[in-house]
Amino acid sequence: MKNFVFHNPTKILFGKYTIRSIGDETAAFGKTALLVYGQSSIKNNGIYDQVTKSLQDAGVTIIELNGVQSNPVLSHVHQGITLAQENNVDVIVAVGGGSVLDSAKAISAGALVEHDVWKFFTGRKSLKAALPLTCVLTLAASGSEMNSSMVVTNEATKQKFGFANKHLYPKVSILDPTATFSVSTEYTAYGAVDAIAHVLEYYFTNLEPYTPVQDHFMEGLVISSMDSCNRVLQNLEDYDARADLMWAATLALNGLTGAGLGKVGFPMHMIEHSLSALYNVAHGAGLSVVIPGWMAYQAQRTPEKFAQFAERVFGIMSGSIEKKAAEGRQALLSWFKKVQAPTSLTALHIPVQDIPMIAENAVALAKVWGMKDYTQDKIEDILKLCA
Amino acid sequence: MKNFVFHNPTKILFGKYTIRSIGDETAAFGKTALLVYGQSSIKNNGIYDQVTKSLQDAGVTIIELNGVQSNPVLSHVHQGITLAQENNVDVIVAVGGGSVLDSAKAISAGALVEHDVWKFFTGRKSLKAALPLTCVLTLAASGSEMNSSMVVTNEATKQKFGFANKHLYPKVSILDPTATFSVSTEYTAYGAVDAIAHVLEYYFTNLEPYTPVQDHFMEGLVISSMDSCNRVLQNLEDYDARADLMWAATLALNGLTGAGLGKVGFPMHMIEHSLSALYNVAHGAGLSVVIPGWMAYQAQRTPEKFAQFAERVFGIMSGSIEKKAAEGRQALLSWFKKVQAPTSLTALHIPVQDIPMIAENAVALAKVWGMKDYTQDKIEDILKLCA
Repeated sequence: MKNFVFHNPTKILFGKYTIRSIGDETAAFGKTALLVYGQSSIKNNGIYDQVTKSLQDAGVTIIELNGVQSNPVLSHVHQGITLAQENNVDVIVAVGGGSVLDSAKAISAGALVEHDVWKFFTGRKSLKAALPLTCVLTLAASGSEMNSSMVVTNEATKQKFGFANKHLYPKVSILDPTATFSVSTEYTAYGAVDAIAHVLEYYFTNLEPYTPVQDHFMEGLVISSMDSCNRVLQNLEDYDARADLMWAATLALNGLTGAGLGKVGFPMHMIEHSLSALYNVAHGAGLSVVIPGWMAYQAQRTPEKFAQFAERVFGIMSGSIEKKAAEGRQALLSWFKKVQAPTSLTALHIPVQDIPMIAENAVALAKVWGMKDYTQDKIEDILKLCA
Repeated sequence: MKNFVFHNPTKILFGKYTIRSIGDETAAFGKTALLVYGQSSIKNNGIYDQVTKSLQDAGVTIIELNGVQSNPVLSHVHQGITLAQENNVDVIVAVGGGSVLDSAKAISAGALVEHDVWKFFTGRKSLKAALPLTCVLTLAASGSEMNSSMVVTNEATKQKFGFANKHLYPKVSILDPTATFSVSTEYTAYGAVDAIAHVLEYYFTNLEPYTPVQDHFMEGLVISSMDSCNRVLQNLEDYDARADLMWAATLALNGLTGAGLGKVGFPMHMIEHSLSALYNVAHGAGLSVVIPGWMAYQAQRTPEKFAQFAERVFGIMSGSIEKKAAEGRQALLSWFKKVQAPTSLTALHIPVQDIPMIAENAVALAKVWGMKDYTQDKIEDILKLCA
């Protein structure tokens, strides 16, 4: 096992009727809050009213920033930073899914500096402090509610970049599974794919030869994510299924899965970010296209780990290592199809002629993330397997 | 899933050469530290020298309290509280295993109040603040390094009681697997049994009908604890095996396994605490006697959960639910025997005639812990199965 530091100070309030606590939890950090959210959904399902009432009851003055879009953009983050600075905001309240949370994190990072927040993303500046952040989560997917990282798209440069910093852990995250009841079947599945992708990035790029604690934990999270997603798709208001999916997605990227693995890569996200940046596809949909292709490429190189995955996640116990590895990949692909997540570039209406351009965009991120072995050629080869 | 709050702020520094950080990490909380440790072992293996040098280099003045014994006692805690108060200590540094950590937590709780610290254990006072605590862990077992609870024995009343409070999370815990190289085969096995017991308490007393995220996590921890213990017993200085066991034991009781399960009991610990209080047996040894008996009793009542355990932990896939449940219990018992942990009262030289007295002692703790269904008769029945 590699050395590691694990320090995740986020307070999680999980369950029914927890949204009403957002006011008191936020008031502990200041009197003026920037409320960040997306489009109309939280107004339609009543969450907006619950949150604003709770904040008002706790004496918190609300400045609003709505309009965060899926694949959140830097220009909107800039608006939020300006609002936060002009109003001397003490605390940011994010109400939404990963895009809202990531925007809110970027605003909390940028509000305390004079330079462009993008410099944190490109590594030209390092973050020393951020505004405190509280959140009400409305989508089980990104894990951003209990980690220190975020991703934002710079429209001008067509770059979807991310970074992590210890100052970006939310102080408090409220996870009420009923807040996800109105998430569509399509986005529920994309969320589960995102959670699974977070696990698989660590699981399959882990260079340590034997990590039983982490491996069993990750295998359990993949099983639980698929299982709970299946149950939600049977009944969108199945509380326990929504709760299991929500908690699995949070645990999938809160630092525990990777603790002790040392340096890992995030190649599937790296490639997917190009698809989102260039075609604005939903992150989970892009991942469900990239994952099978990347796994087909990688399974040729580390078949033993893929065989272990097949055995423990899908109970595929017979045959050679290569056979089990292939059947495990196929089983995951079949599950993606079952939950109607796209599994090819064609399904996303992305022409295969674009592969060189997509790879070129991805290489830029690979450089920032220090993944030197992901060359243009290698990424093109993987994308061909995603075609 | 039940509602829960998860907020574990302990910072973990894990790995080789991390002990040298104890000075700087401790200095962040003050200039005068009470160094709490046990007997001579940390002087023999060099850890004492490493810790004191690091503290001195960081400018920390050291007040020493040595002599913590296995099953730490209240009178020694009182000595520590007096020392802390007389010297205006800012921070407590625990160097040892669960007994040292628990003593240090009790001192950190008692140092800031005028009344007897035991009132926190009996529930007559509630804790509002505690001195900050840092630690260097030398035994993989109790999980105390990343949780808010502790257990201490009151010699006068022969009560081994515990309590938990959010102010008792260590601020920083340093987990260097090499610090456990000198732990004997016997105590390595006891530590693994303790970690497994922590998991099983939650796993088998969980009243929620279906909790896949937590169940898979817990099953993985049991598998990893047995697997890593086996490897350590082959080679006491196998770094990765020591590391896996250490991290599994920490995760086994840091709040994650139980998050969402609602109210659970700790019946095996409740009964074992009587054995430790009355006969001063090692905690892990007492547990390895109580676990098989309690499981035999409980498996009659919730056989489905025991069958799931047999399937997922030991791969026992054929036969009726009752048959699988019995075989799973037997497999765990066989593993206890393999690692030479005692599995009967007789092996601990405790006469069966004492069972009523042991049960009477246990009932007192059952009342404090709110486990009303554990009557004298029921505990005696379980103890007979441990004979």
